[in-house]
This record gives sequence, structure tokens and C-alpha cells, in this order.
Amino acid sequence: MTARERKESLLSNITSPHQLRRLNEQQLNQLARELRERVVEVVARGGGHLASNLGVAELTVALHYVFDFATDRLVWDVGHQCYPHKLLTGRNEKFDTLRQARGLSGFPNPAESPYDVFCTGHAGAAISTACGLAWASENAPNAPKVVAVVGDASIVNGLAFEGLNNAALLRRQFLIILNDNSMAIDRTHGAMAHALDRIRTTATYSGIKQSTEQLLQHMPLGENINKALRNIKAGLKTSIHGGQIFENLGFDYYGPIDGHNIPELIRVLRRLSDIQRPVLLHVHTQKGRGCQYAVDDPCRFHSPSAYTLKDGKAVFEEKKRLQWTAAFSETLVELARRDDRIVAMTAAMPDGTGLIEFRNEFPARCIDVGIGESHAVAMAAGLAREGKRPIVAMYSTFMQRAYDQVFQELCLNKMPVMLCLDRAGLVGGDGAVHHGFADISIMRSLPGMVLMAPCDQSELKAAMTLGLSLRGPCAIRYPRDFVPESLPNCTPFELGQSRVVLAPPTGGIADATLVCYGAMVQTGMAAAKQLAAGGLNPCVINARFAKPMDEGMVVRVLSSGKPVVTLEDHSAAGGFGSAFLELACDRGLNTANVRVLGLPDRFIAHASRREQLAETGLDAAGVVATVLDMIQLGASHRRYKSVAQTRSADADATQRKY
Amino acid sequence: MTARERKESLLSNITSPHQLRRLNEQQLNQLARELRERVVEVVARGGGHLASNLGVAELTVALHYVFDFATDRLVWDVGHQCYPHKLLTGRNEKFDTLRQARGLSGFPNPAESPYDVFCTGHAGAAISTACGLAWASENAPNAPKVVAVVGDASIVNGLAFEGLNNAALLRRQFLIILNDNSMAIDRTHGAMAHALDRIRTTATYSGIKQSTEQLLQHMPLGENINKALRNIKAGLKTSIHGGQIFENLGFDYYGPIDGHNIPELIRVLRRLSDIQRPVLLHVHTQKGRGCQYAVDDPCRFHSPSAYTLKDGKAVFEEKKRLQWTAAFSETLVELARRDDRIVAMTAAMPDGTGLIEFRNEFPARCIDVGIGESHAVAMAAGLAREGKRPIVAMYSTFMQRAYDQVFQELCLNKMPVMLCLDRAGLVGGDGAVHHGFADISIMRSLPGMVLMAPCDQSELKAAMTLGLSLRGPCAIRYPRDFVPESLPNCTPFELGQSRVVLAPPTGGIADATLVCYGAMVQTGMAAAKQLAAGGLNPCVINARFAKPMDEGMVVRVLSSGKPVVTLEDHSAAGGFGSAFLELACDRGLNTANVRVLGLPDRFIAHASRREQLAETGLDAAGVVATVLDMIQLGASHRRYKSVAQTRSADADATQRKY
Repeated sequence: MTARERKESLLSNITSPHQLRRLNEQQLNQLARELRERVVEVVARGGGHLASNLGVAELTVALHYVFDFATDRLVWDVGHQCYPHKLLTGRNEKFDTLRQARGLSGFPNPAESPYDVFCTGHAGAAISTACGLAWASENAPNAPKVVAVVGDASIVNGLAFEGLNNAALLRRQFLIILNDNSMAIDRTHGAMAHALDRIRTTATYSGIKQSTEQLLQHMPLGENINKALRNIKAGLKTSIHGGQIFENLGFDYYGPIDGHNIPELIRVLRRLSDIQRPVLLHVHTQKGRGCQYAVDDPCRFHSPSAYTLKDGKAVFEEKKRLQWTAAFSETLVELARRDDRIVAMTAAMPDGTGLIEFRNEFPARCIDVGIGESHAVAMAAGLAREGKRPIVAMYSTFMQRAYDQVFQELCLNKMPVMLCLDRAGLVGGDGAVHHGFADISIMRSLPGMVLMAPCDQSELKAAMTLGLSLRGPCAIRYPRDFVPESLPNCTPFELGQSRVVLAPPTGGIADATLVCYGAMVQTGMAAAKQLAAGGLNPCVINARFAKPMDEGMVVRVLSSGKPVVTLEDHSAAGGFGSAFLELACDRGLNTANVRVLGLPDRFIAHASRREQLAETGLDAAGVVATVLDMIQLGASHRRYKSVAQTRSADADATQRKY
Repeated sequence: MTARERKESLLSNITSPHQLRRLNEQQLNQLARELRERVVEVVARGGGHLASNLGVAELTVALHYVFDFATDRLVWDVGHQCYPHKLLTGRNEKFDTLRQARGLSGFPNPAESPYDVFCTGHAGAAISTACGLAWASENAPNAPKVVAVVGDASIVNGLAFEGLNNAALLRRQFLIILNDNSMAIDRTHGAMAHALDRIRTTATYSGIKQSTEQLLQHMPLGENINKALRNIKAGLKTSIHGGQIFENLGFDYYGPIDGHNIPELIRVLRRLSDIQRPVLLHVHTQKGRGCQYAVDDPCRFHSPSAYTLKDGKAVFEEKKRLQWTAAFSETLVELARRDDRIVAMTAAMPDGTGLIEFRNEFPARCIDVGIGESHAVAMAAGLAREGKRPIVAMYSTFMQRAYDQVFQELCLNKMPVMLCLDRAGLVGGDGAVHHGFADISIMRSLPGMVLMAPCDQSELKAAMTLGLSLRGPCAIRYPRDFVPESLPNCTPFELGQSRVVLAPPTGGIADATLVCYGAMVQTGMAAAKQLAAGGLNPCVINARFAKPMDEGMVVRVLSSGKPVVTLEDHSAAGGFGSAFLELACDRGLNTANVRVLGLPDRFIAHASRREQLAETGLDAAGVVATVLDMIQLGASHRRYKSVAQTRSADADATQRKY
């Protein structure tokens, strides 16, 4: 940007949202355009959430114009649509670092700005947290005004409904803005979506209501008729328009209004901001607004990777290597062709989880339940009970939302449902809110659950094939990454059996054994190569199962007394390595020479996945360093000695952390 | 029952619900009465769910009269109201064994009868699982009819809403019966409850609708007026009555009808059973029906313990010892008196979680959100953000429903919210669906979470006091049991610090160390007493924290090389003992002499808590046996040797299990 451009740019001169009030209508519109340009510029360069941010430019401007979120509270549901908000709240200059290591987060983050109330990334919580904010200050004299912005895809989530049901009881100002663009990441599904559709396709509520009331007022009618008509009028209050579902839940419903008309937004928000009860404002926005290619394909441009523009079209770098999502997609279709019991399910993410090809080929066997992971898993149990073989494709981090259903509906009932968990492990730019770091630890204590992780595409197919033969539930995890080249001679998955993928020379004893889970087999092999180059004889085990774990393998690798390192792209607490230790302990084996490598006990910020793996010591270099350390220094001796030295320092760190 | 009574009893002659069709109206009413008598007889003798089962006697009779659930599907939400269903489906004789070891479960259980479709116990899943059953056979020629019975307290759960939103899209028969008794365990709260209240207090929908339609048909009006009135009529379809919320969601709404009028129930169910689209039938029932003391106090008689009748009143055995719930109740009130930041929250269980006294003293600081654990935890984050100190009281098993909010809203956002988890561990008669066996393992991998367990009432206060001083979330667990007498000289809880509660004689080395978590300290002390009587010198540690674990303690107890046993009333997989092993491994310590005692990797059926603890080796006798085994035989030697011998047997068992 030249000095002259900077001077003419409104955005680059805005350091606080308070400055918005000095702008006139034309300038506000220009500002919205500049927000869009800035979002497109940065997302095209490094990837990120695009279409949803383009959709809320005017809404964000109007919100900051009417409210003062230095004292009032603004909660974005999910939070991926917060880019314009970040740009208006002092983060324009730093916006080039979006989603990069040490840069701005792609989600709200109170550590960045007092204008961000919560770190979020999972859908549906905004109404509930906002309800808490509002309740806490219900009787305070200068209570902050509370606004929650919730998308139409997110408001159908069970948590959002629980929030609506409870927040309706508030007796103070409370504004929910329903940002309705008729899209989740994909098209929104479900009955609520149909209800909102009906609003779009009929005359507006206020119009009909008005004319009918006038009519009734001017008709000379007898007492009985009047009585009947009063009934009708009472009914009218919550009829004709789709918003009645919210009025039934105790909210005043307003709208729908045009979410790209700043003056109208300001007028309505001003009027609603003083209403001392729960209000829902229905705003129509267009996903991708102002950017034709994003409007044309809002699903693809929900969260695109970096791209360049050529003749007004977005051109993506061709992916030369297969991603796990695509490998799953291919495998699923292949298996489904010969097993018509297979039904595939997603919670509003057919694209992200790789169900598009399946849906194209088997539309009647694909179920998208919208953002409702709990329902997806419970419904899968019903399908399985009738003989189907449901495969529920979701991100590891979102499976957390269905934990109780995985417990009750799948494990307790022994239902043969397969959970295919994408984005298991570190996820890169989406950062702390999206890592799949807990799936093993939370499902490992569930009786009957089978936990598998393939190391390449052949293994993915082998794991899914075994999964289809089980009489109970299973979960298969794989990361947001490329699939490594398949190791030769993939054998079928046998329950609880690991596989040696790199054996020491015949008859020899390995100097160290790397017991790797899933995608970490590749890392283990790379580390072994380096160790072998240094003259060592490493052994690499592809564990395949975190549950049931291969007991014979555990006994074998521990019997030599040589260093054993377990590797997992998952929290070290309660994960795969933890299961290894439990089994070893149960068999009375010495684990002093074992080292568990996994994610540390802190949240890992956004960066590239490669950077995150390096930071946490889960790349080949980290594994090599660990092994050398154990071999050269004698792990148990050195590390036991160090306890006394580090204990007081650790205690200090602990006190700071909690 | 005498032979003559048996002959006259309808119930005792019913071995299959098919026999109901031979009965006339009078006999059906008599049968409902007999169902009630049988339920009261058995619950009074041994405890169980009472009021809700009394409420559904007629409904259950009518359902089995109209449908044939040998082929059709009946799903009870939650499931605690299934007693009459059990009595009509061949389980009358065995009903005396309800909730006892090897007896009938208090919840539906397919292992008992083909008439039970799913094991359940947690609320909200029935619509979703039924939706799966219905979807799976949507195009089948002889598709079974699917019926889900959901209470008014349960239907406001987020999962139920997700189910409604999705099930509305079914294009086949699908019947939801809303069993509306205006009660959860306590009074139902929330906007939906108000909507249902409005239905109760206004004339019925069908009446008003009919008269208004007749009116409109007979009025001579001009074209404009006609047009306006057509709008009104369209609106009427979904107005005036509270059921419009379901109609908006795509369900045909019928009712409300009297749930105690068998002929009306049969007539309406027959008519609705053939409708080939999603239908919701609203049925009014009375909780406790036919049993005056239960009608008068349905909260107390939701799930009473055993009682006797005296002059028509229920008399409970006086509890001479303090229960953990009561200890929490006392402590909460005490702390709240001097800390007005404290807000207490419950998800529809003020009684079960011990909030009644708090609510009586601080009504404005007590929040009951209804059955919405996810919302409760997310709202708590909002409260904490504004300076409150929310204490969320819930059962360990239900916290599973809020796992994603514990992750995102509490841990990621470092919100100082305290989860007080009652019924942590084995719960006795409620059995497999209600054990709190996973709270440690699922929360241990969440960065920033503090996990504590007190061993007596003084410690509960000390733990809560520390919790109130933390800058992030914590969870405190305690079981469904009596509180042991307080150990002398309770010290304040210090973060990550354990406490020696039984030291070996001065200077001596313990022959074995019992590292006990929470309620297991009592068990450890009892075991230690027996070991000491046998001439051994045991040491007992009260761990207090599962996270952060006391590192110095781990190092100390392992340094002697003597047996160490960890004790927890929680899954051994991923739990407290697992954390102990991880820390030991991280410090390079030998764990060959450690034994982790916890719940095994299978579901534990209903029985008394005492029986369950004995069955799983978690009573004093089990601990003593483990210690003696380790000391006498040399644990590591014996158990390592046994691996080869048992491995093939284990592999067979594994194959059978999955």
C-alpha cells in the first residue's frame, strides 16, 4: 500500500471502533468494502475462513457503530466469522500474520484484545456463554449490553437450543442476532432450516400482521365473533411467520432484515438495544458477499487454502499428494460398493470429512444431520440396530461433542458403528480450538470400544474392513496431513495385533524400539533412518491399535531392557503411551526405559502442522534426540537424578499455571 | 399372594403383551391399577423409580394394546419409566429382583427382553435412536412402526432438539409421545416448559380451531377480506396452541389428551399409528398417579430408597450417617455465606446434587437450567467471566454430556468454574448407565484442569476452598456413599500436594504403600489395618489430586522398591493410577512393583455399591489380597512369567468380547 493509498483508506486509520461513529453512511459502506478487500487479500495469501467473513462485513460495522464493546459484550458463535471484528478492533496491522505461528488467531481470543470475550471454535456455545454474562449482571446498575451473533447452521445445535430455552427467562436486555445465510459450511439441513426457508419465501411478518390487525379493528362484529377474533389475534402474535418458533421460546422476534444495508441495521439495532428482555433479530446475509467466486461456491470458499486470482477466478495450487481426507473418501466409496449396509453420516461437513464422492454415488445412503454431532452418533446407533453399518465421519475435536452418545448408545449397547475421525492430532492454522488431542484418552476407558489408527492408505482400508466385521463400535483416527506412501505388503488388521515395520538385522537386538501409533509410523521410520545412519539398530512397530493393545508386543519390546519410545499425535496424558504403560505395569514389567512422546499438557497455538510437530518434539528430529538422550546418558539414571533438581522449579511453574 | 389372588390378578396371568387385546376396558383399567400396585410393592421394598412409573401405567397399557412391539419399536427416553413395560413383557415374576445383583435392571435392557430396544439411562437420546430405526427401514415393505416416549423435561435437552430437527425430515410413520407431567425430577424449568404450561391453561387447540374455522366459513366477506382471512387461517394451523413449536419443526401435533384415559389413548394411538409422517402426540400425565404420597411429593418419590407405609404415609429409615451429597450441601451453604461470588447451578437435579438448602437460603444465586448439562457448563463460563464463582453440581456420569464445554469454555478459556461431581464411581442399583467411571480419564488430558477428590467432609471443604482460589477450572469428585469419619488434623489443600495419612513407624520403610484417591482413602485405611494386624507396616497416602499429581510423592513411594498399589473408584484405564504411571515413567522410575486398582474394562451391572466394590476388588479385602499377592510372591517375577501362559487364553477372550 502506498502512502497515498493508506491516507485514503479508512480502515488503516481506524485504531478503535469508537472512531466509527465519526463516519457517514457512505464512509461506512466504504469501510465495509475495505474490510472485504483486506480479508480477501490475507486469506488468498495464506488461507483461512473467507465466505462467512465476507458475509458479516456490514453487520460487524453496524454492531460496533451502535454498541460500545469496550464495555458491552459481543460473543461470536463458532468465531470463524470474526475477521472484520478483528480488523475494526485494533488488529488491522497485525492481520497479515493471521493463523501463522505467533500471529493472530483465526478465532476470537481474549489474549489478543479485550474486544474478544471467549476463545471459541466449536459451534453452539455463544447463547449459553452470553446468557451467563447477562445473568451475572442482571441487576447491576450499569449492566453491559450483551449481544450474541449466531449463524443459522449453528442455532440448530442442541447446545444453542438449550441456551435459547434458558436465556428466554432473562429479565434484562439480551440480543441474539441470527445471521441467516442458509448455509452451514455446506447447505443447512433440518426442520429449522425449512422454517427459515419459509420466512424467506413469504411476505414479511410485520406486513401481514399490520394489515390483519387493521382489518380486525375496522370490522363491526358481534360479541361472539369478537371473542373468536380475539383468539385469532392472540394467535397471530406468533403466527404466519417462521419466527414463531423463537417467540414460543420466549424471545421477541424481529426481522428478517437485510444484513448488508448498514443504515437499516443501525436503525434496527439502536431500537432493539434498549429492550429489556430477550430479543432475536433475524438478519439475512449472503455468504461470500462482494466476491463472486465465493458467492458462487461458498462451500469451497468457506475455509480455502491459499490461492491466486487469474481472470477473476481463484486458482489453487494443485495438490500433488493425497490427503487423508481424500484417502478416506476413496476407501469409503470402494467399500460401500460391495457392502450395501454402509450408511455414511456427517454433521454439516460433507466436504471437510470427505463424503462428497460418496454422496454423489450413493445419495440415499448419505445422511447430513447438520451441526448435531450428538444426534449423529445416537442416530447411528438406531441405524446399526436395524442392521445398517453406519460410518460417522467427523473431526476428532467435534467427536468430543458426542462423547456421552459414544458411551451410552455405542459402547453400552455394543452397536457396530464406525467413527472415522479426521483431523486427529495437530491441525495447523486452526490452532488450539481444533486439535484432535483427546480422542484416545476419552474413548479408552469405554468398555468394548476398539481404537485403531492406520499409517497409510492400504492400512486405512484394512482398518475399515476390520471395523465392518466387528460386533461393536470402533474409531479410526487420521490427521490433517498428506498420506505417506504405503509401506509394502500391508497385512489385514487383526484385532489387537501390531506389526513390526522395521526389524533389526536378523537375530540382533534393537538398540531402541519406536512404538508408533497411526500417522506417527512415518515419523518413526524417518527417525529410524537417521538413527541407522548413525550406526544404531532401531526397531519400528506399527501399533495399529490403542485398544485393545497388543500385549505380546508390549512384553516383547520391554524384555530387552533397551529404550522404548511410544509416539502419538495426541495428548501424552491418558493416550496411547499411557495405555502402553498400564499394560506393562499390569504385567509387572519395568517401564524405567520407556519414554512417552505425545502432546504436552498445554494448548498448542496456531502455526503450520509441521511447526507444531517440531515444537512438541513429535517430528523425526525430536524422536532422534529423545532416543539418543536415552541411549547415551542412560535414561533412568539421569532422569531420576534430575528430579530433585527440577522439582522446585516445576512447583513454581505449576503454581503459575493454575 | 395366595393362589386365589393370583387367579384373580390379571397381571400375573399376562406373559405377553399380545394378551392385552383380549381384555375389555374395565379389565384394562384394572390392569393399570395392578401395575401400580406391583411397582409400589417392589419399590417400597428395595427402592427405585416410583412416581414416573405410576404416571405411565395407562399409557403403557394403551401402547402395547395398539402396537405390536414384538415387531414394532418402542424406545423410552431415559428409561427409568419402563417398569410397567417390563411387567407387561414377561418380567412380572422376576420383578422382585429389580435393581438387585443378577436381577432385573431398573432401565431398559435388550439382554432381558426383545421388547427393550436400547440400554439407556441418560436423557434425550430416544428421538435420535428412534430416528435411526425409522430411517433404516424407511422404504422397507413391512417397516416396523417406531414410537419414542419422551418426557417434557427430557425433550428440552439439546440432543432431543437435534433429534426433532432431523427426524422431522422422515417420510414415513414416526410417532413421538410427549409425556408431559410438568416435572423433571424437580419442576421443569425453561421457555419450553412455559410454552407447555400455556397449553395446559388455555382451551384446547382443536376446540378453538374448529369454532374459528366454522366462523370464517359462514361470514360473507369481500375479496380483500377473504384474502386476509386466508392468511389468518394459514396462521391458525400453527397458532393459538403451544404445539406450534413442534409444527414449526415439521411435526404434526396432536393433543393434549388425558394420559390416564385408556379408551381415549387407544382411539388416538390407533388413528395416529398409520400416519406416514412424523407426528407428536402430547399426553398429559400425573407423576405419582394413584399413590397420594407420591402425587404430593413427586420430587422425593422420583427415585426413593426403600420405605414402609404407616397410616398411608411413607416412612423412610432415618439415615444415621452423613451422605456425601448432604456433606456437599452443608459445605456449599457455609462457603456461600461468606463468598457472595458463588452461584450454584444444576441441570434439573437440585435434590440429587444437594442444592435444596442452598436454593432455600440463596434463591437468587441458584440456577436450575433443566436437563441441559452442556448449557449449564457453558453458561457457567459466562458467569465466571463476569466475576462470579459458579459451582456446577452434577453427577459424574452426566458431566460426560458437557465434555466439549469443559474443554472449550472452561479449560481453553481458563474460567474459574468448579464442577462438583456427585455419584463419582460405582453407584449401586442404577447400574451400568450411571457409574461415574470416566471423569478422571476424560478431563485429565485437558490442559489447565485441576482434579481433586476429598476423603472426608473436612477435606471436601478444604478442596472447595482451594477451588475457589484457583484462576481456572477444577473438578471435585465424591461417591454415592456415606462420608467416613473425618481423619484428624485436616490440612488445607495445596495444589498438587498429597498427604500421608498412615506413616510406617518412625524411620521404618513401609512394606507396601497404598496411594488412594478420594473415597478410596477409607478403603486403604481399612486394608492397612488388616495388613498391620498381619504384622506388616503399610503406608497410606491420600493423593488428593489426580491432576496435577504430587510428583515428589510419586518419587518417594517408588524409591523404596516396595509394592505400591494405587486405588481409585474409577476406570483403571486412563484414570488416577494411569496418571501415576505416566509421571513415574516420565521420571524414569521403575513401575514393575506398582499395581493399579480400579474398575475393569467392562460394564458393571446393578447391585449394591458394596457388592460392586467387592466384585471389582475395590474393597479392603480386595486391596489386602492384592498387597499380599505382591509381597509374598514377588509381583514382577510371578506376573511376568504368567504372560506366556495366559496370553493365548486372553486372545480368545478378546476375540469374544469385540
